[in-house]
Parts: sequence; C-alpha cells; structure tokens
Amino acid sequence: MTVKKPLVQALQGKSDCQIPLWMMRQAGRYLPEYKKLRAEAGDFLSLCYSPSLAAEVTLQPIRRFDFDAAILFSDILVVPDALGQRVWFVTGEGPKLEPLDQNDFSGLDIGKINSHLAPVFETVSRVKDGLEDNKALIGFCGAPWTVATYMVAGEGTKEQAPARLWAYQDEQAFSRLIDILTEASIIYLKGQIEAGVDVVQIFDSWAGSLAENEREKWCLEPLRKISRAIKEAHPEIPIIGFLRGAPLVYQEMAKIADIEGVGIDTASDIDFARETLSGKKTIQGNLDPLALLAGGDALDEGIDRILEGFGETAFIFNLGHGILPETPIAHVEYLVAKVRAYSKATRGA
Amino acid sequence: MTVKKPLVQALQGKSDCQIPLWMMRQAGRYLPEYKKLRAEAGDFLSLCYSPSLAAEVTLQPIRRFDFDAAILFSDILVVPDALGQRVWFVTGEGPKLEPLDQNDFSGLDIGKINSHLAPVFETVSRVKDGLEDNKALIGFCGAPWTVATYMVAGEGTKEQAPARLWAYQDEQAFSRLIDILTEASIIYLKGQIEAGVDVVQIFDSWAGSLAENEREKWCLEPLRKISRAIKEAHPEIPIIGFLRGAPLVYQEMAKIADIEGVGIDTASDIDFARETLSGKKTIQGNLDPLALLAGGDALDEGIDRILEGFGETAFIFNLGHGILPETPIAHVEYLVAKVRAYSKATRGA
Repeated sequence: MTVKKPLVQALQGKSDCQIPLWMMRQAGRYLPEYKKLRAEAGDFLSLCYSPSLAAEVTLQPIRRFDFDAAILFSDILVVPDALGQRVWFVTGEGPKLEPLDQNDFSGLDIGKINSHLAPVFETVSRVKDGLEDNKALIGFCGAPWTVATYMVAGEGTKEQAPARLWAYQDEQAFSRLIDILTEASIIYLKGQIEAGVDVVQIFDSWAGSLAENEREKWCLEPLRKISRAIKEAHPEIPIIGFLRGAPLVYQEMAKIADIEGVGIDTASDIDFARETLSGKKTIQGNLDPLALLAGGDALDEGIDRILEGFGETAFIFNLGHGILPETPIAHVEYLVAKVRAYSKATRGA
Repeated sequence: MTVKKPLVQALQGKSDCQIPLWMMRQAGRYLPEYKKLRAEAGDFLSLCYSPSLAAEVTLQPIRRFDFDAAILFSDILVVPDALGQRVWFVTGEGPKLEPLDQNDFSGLDIGKINSHLAPVFETVSRVKDGLEDNKALIGFCGAPWTVATYMVAGEGTKEQAPARLWAYQDEQAFSRLIDILTEASIIYLKGQIEAGVDVVQIFDSWAGSLAENEREKWCLEPLRKISRAIKEAHPEIPIIGFLRGAPLVYQEMAKIADIEGVGIDTASDIDFARETLSGKKTIQGNLDPLALLAGGDALDEGIDRILEGFGETAFIFNLGHGILPETPIAHVEYLVAKVRAYSKATRGA
C-alpha cells in the first residue's frame, strides 16, 4: 500500500486529509543549521549547484519541524544563469545580473538548461532518498514575468519599472523574452519532475505591479502554457500557481484547468479567496510572515482566521510570503503545534 | 449663475458632464518650470511652507495643460512635522524622520496643527485667487496608516515592515498613534476646506501591504472616521479615498456613506472596479504612469481601455499612481487632447 502524502491529497481536492503544512523559504536564514552551512558553503549559487549541500539544506526544516513538504533549495535565477546571462549574489544586496541587451538577446540558449541544471536535478534525487514516504517534495521555478524583471534590470527594482517600461515600449521583443522563459521553465520543471519531485510551484512574486491587461499577457498566458505542457507530459503531477499581489487574479486562476493549487498572499481577503477558489482549486496560504515573527496574539489571531476560513475546504497551510530571517524558532514550533492540533481536532488526522 | 466645475459635477455623480482630468503629482519634476523653481527654492519642506512658491507650483500644470483641477502642492509628511516629529528630505533618498519613540510619543501635539500649517492654508487661498471658476482645487492629506509607516520607520521601507510589525507587537500603542493621526488629519483637512479647497483626497499609498483585518483596522476605520467628521462639518465638500494596492477594498469603500470618490490604482481591474463602484461612487483613475512615459501604442491602448471602461459612468480621468519625472511633456499633451476629444464626442462637453 502506498503511503499517502497529505500535500498531494490536498492538491487532489481532499478536504478531510491532514491539513498539510509547509512554509515558503522554510530552508533559510531563520535556521541556525542553515546559517552554519551557508557560512561554510561559499557563494550562494555554488550552494544551489552543490547537490549534497543543497539536499542537506532542503531537508533541514523537515527534520526540525516535520513539515509535510520539502521544497527544493534553489533560486529562481538559476534559469537566466542556465540561459547564459551572468548571475551573482551580493550579500545584503540580493541578486545581480549582467543586464540584458534589449536589442540582441539571441545568445540566450535554452539548449543548455538540462546540462547546466543537472546538479539541481541531482539534488532532487538526493532529497527524495532522504524523505519519508508521507512527505512531498516540491519543485519550482520563477514565473517568466518575475524572472524577466530581474533579467531586464540586472537586479530587483522598485515596482519592476524597467521591465514594465520595456514591455510597453517594445512589446514584440519583450514577448520573445517571455516566450524563451516559458520554454525554459517547461524544460526545467520537466527535469525536476523526471528527477523525482511530487509537486511543482510556479512563483510569480511580481505579478502585482502589472496593469490588468499586461498581467494577462505576461503572467496568466505563460502560466497557462507552462501548466498545459507539464500536464501533457506528467498528468499525475499537481501544479501550484502563486501570483503575488494580485488578488483578483484568483478569478482567472480558478479557470486554468491544468493547475490544482493557488497560492494566496498575505494581503489577500480570506472570504474572497474561498468564494472564488473553493471547490475548484486547492488554496495555499496565507499567514503574514510578520505575524509569525511577532508571535503572541497577532500570531494566534492570524492562524485562527486562516483555519476558520479555509479549514473545511481543500487547503494547504502556508505563509503569504517567505519566512523572515529574524523569525524566532519557537514561533514556528508554536505554529506547527497549533495547526496540527486543529487538523487532529477537526479532521481526525 | 455659478460656473460649473467638472470635477465637482463628477463627484456629485454626474456622468454627462465633461470628463474631468487631472494627474497625481501633476505639479512635479517632469515640468521644466517646476524644476527651475525647485532649484531656486531651497529645501523641499521650505517650498511646501512658502505660500507664494507653493501656489505658483500648484498652478503651473493648470496653465500648461488646462487640467480640471489643481491639487495643493504639499507633502503628506507636513502632518508629522506639525505634530513635532522632525522631518527632512534628502535629495535622491526621499523623506527622513527622527524615528518615533515607540514607548513614549506623548510629545506629539495636535494642538500645533493649525498654527504650524497656516502657510499651507495661505497657499490654498492664493491658489483659489489664481484659478478660473471652472477649475476645482483639491486639498489632501496622507491617510493615518501611510503617514504612520514613515513615522515609525523614519523613512520609506520595503513593504512597510517596521510599522506592520509594531502594529502586531503592540496593537494598543499603534492604535493610539493612528488615533492621533486621524484627529490630526481631520483638523488639517478642515483647515484646508476653510481656506478654500473644493474637494479633498485622502491618500493611503501603502494600504496594499496590510493583511485583510489589519487593513480594516488601520485603513478603513480611520477613513470612515475622517470622512464622517469632514462631512459633518462641511457636507458640501466631496471626499475622494485612494487606497493603493488593495483592489478588493473597493467593495468596502462602496459602502462608506461619506466619501463620493474612489481612486483606483494602476493594477486594478477595470471591469471589477466598475461593477463594484459604478452607481455608488465616482471612479478616479487609473492609467499606468509607465504607459504615459512610454507613449505610442501602449499609451493609446491604456487610454482607450479606461475610457471604454468608465466613460459612461461618473468618472474622473487620472493616473493610477503619480506621474514619473522622466515623462515627456508631449505625452501629457497627447493624453489631454485624447481625453478631451473623447469627452466632446461622447458627452458633447
């Protein structure tokens, strides 16, 4: 008999399984064991490309908190790196990229994705070997729009103005870049699935800065294409879409046949999300990482509101954005215990 | 016979008057005449507190573009300055404030608002004298939440984390600060109205970073209180609320009896905004400032979409956020001509 993975059950639409629980950026700087390994690992991309270290980092939060899912430790910018655009990380400043030549980016080469990212696929295999059967392994990529914002500007930018401006000024060229990233994302996710991930999540962190029709072109249409291609090749793998900062987009996401899960962000209205998505998609979210950091009443109220809002539907407990480095471990332990107790009390699992 | 002001007519719910047109930050750095005056004026706050210069700056865009409304040239941070918290502006870095002592901010004194901000009220009187009768003068303040984010952190911050964290950690104290700012905003707006503004707008630029229930406490409840107090004292003055980054909040704003207008931001869905607000509130927005900067097809499509979406309802054409300093004057001229031609063709005015 196959052991059930609560994360996969929830993504199959079950609302009576144990409420699965994981946290965005759960392998990260709030963990002392991560900081220790990080300090020894050299630069950040080398850590992403070291299967033994990346697998260890991926497993750390599972050992400590018994989360229901591990998420591959990597970065969304390994894709431009694999395409041939130079990427590096400056401590305290975030990612830097050699800015794209907007007049000629024909050098970007999707032919190198599989070979360049082979170490990531190797990480997936190693994590799988270290995970119990009831735990899911989540693979991921950045959505084309979000990755493009960094490729265009060479760094994170306020409201993603450089990429949005280029998209207005030369829609054809920008559309070619999005197409390249859509194709690259499909290849990359397929590689992760073939290496063993159980679920994939597509992160569109900067969807919220786009005007409505731009969001349709640069976020929703690529999400439809990627999820379609993944589903055709791997119909058994559930897909979670996470478009941050654009709550109304859930109405459109509810209609995308090839995704099973919708990640909702910190600022999203719980009633609206449930009314829009419940019965159609599995909802994942949305505790404010600052409430987790603060603890106390704010944390209790935040957890209660989410469990009351989503507890009776197909649901995955998560944060609404990545966990913050300053978060006390004890607050995470408290969160886990509280969600587990609620699940046991209301679902018997 | 009184000359009609299209902005006021639109805020009274009229959908057959000339479509009123103004732009957030219309008095600003994209204008050569502003940059010239700015260079001569000394520091930014001195400019805000100089009635002759501030009035001149307020009127510059009306002379150049014949907009339907002038908006008082000032800054949302004159309120903390008037309350006794030191505020200054560093060129290229934005505002700086002596960070608030979270354990003791009893020194903040609403008793000084009227005297400290007397030069702003004087600016209002001067602008009124220089405006034709068909032009409206808009007064404004920052909403308590948005102003508080700067007061707590001492500067602009990523996703307003310091203020959000404090609100979680010490809700009572934060609530006291919001109450002070609510009271200060009421006094300040009343002063502007008594000096002659025709309409007031309350800017909550950072509403979008808050979780749903926090937004209710820190944005919507203060907006209800401020608009109630203003309406009681000045029932004839229309009020526009602008909560940026939280499109679902329009459902709540549609129910606030004391506001007439709802500003909608760049990322907002046009159909949703119309369905939620039309017939209840006058809609104001929402061209992407980057589309105005880009010009060409992006600008045409952006204007067309807005006019088609809102042209038949009570509506004020505006940007979805402030105009950017790099915006070509010719693009603004094009925008004005296009909106005027549409209004003439569809409304005969």
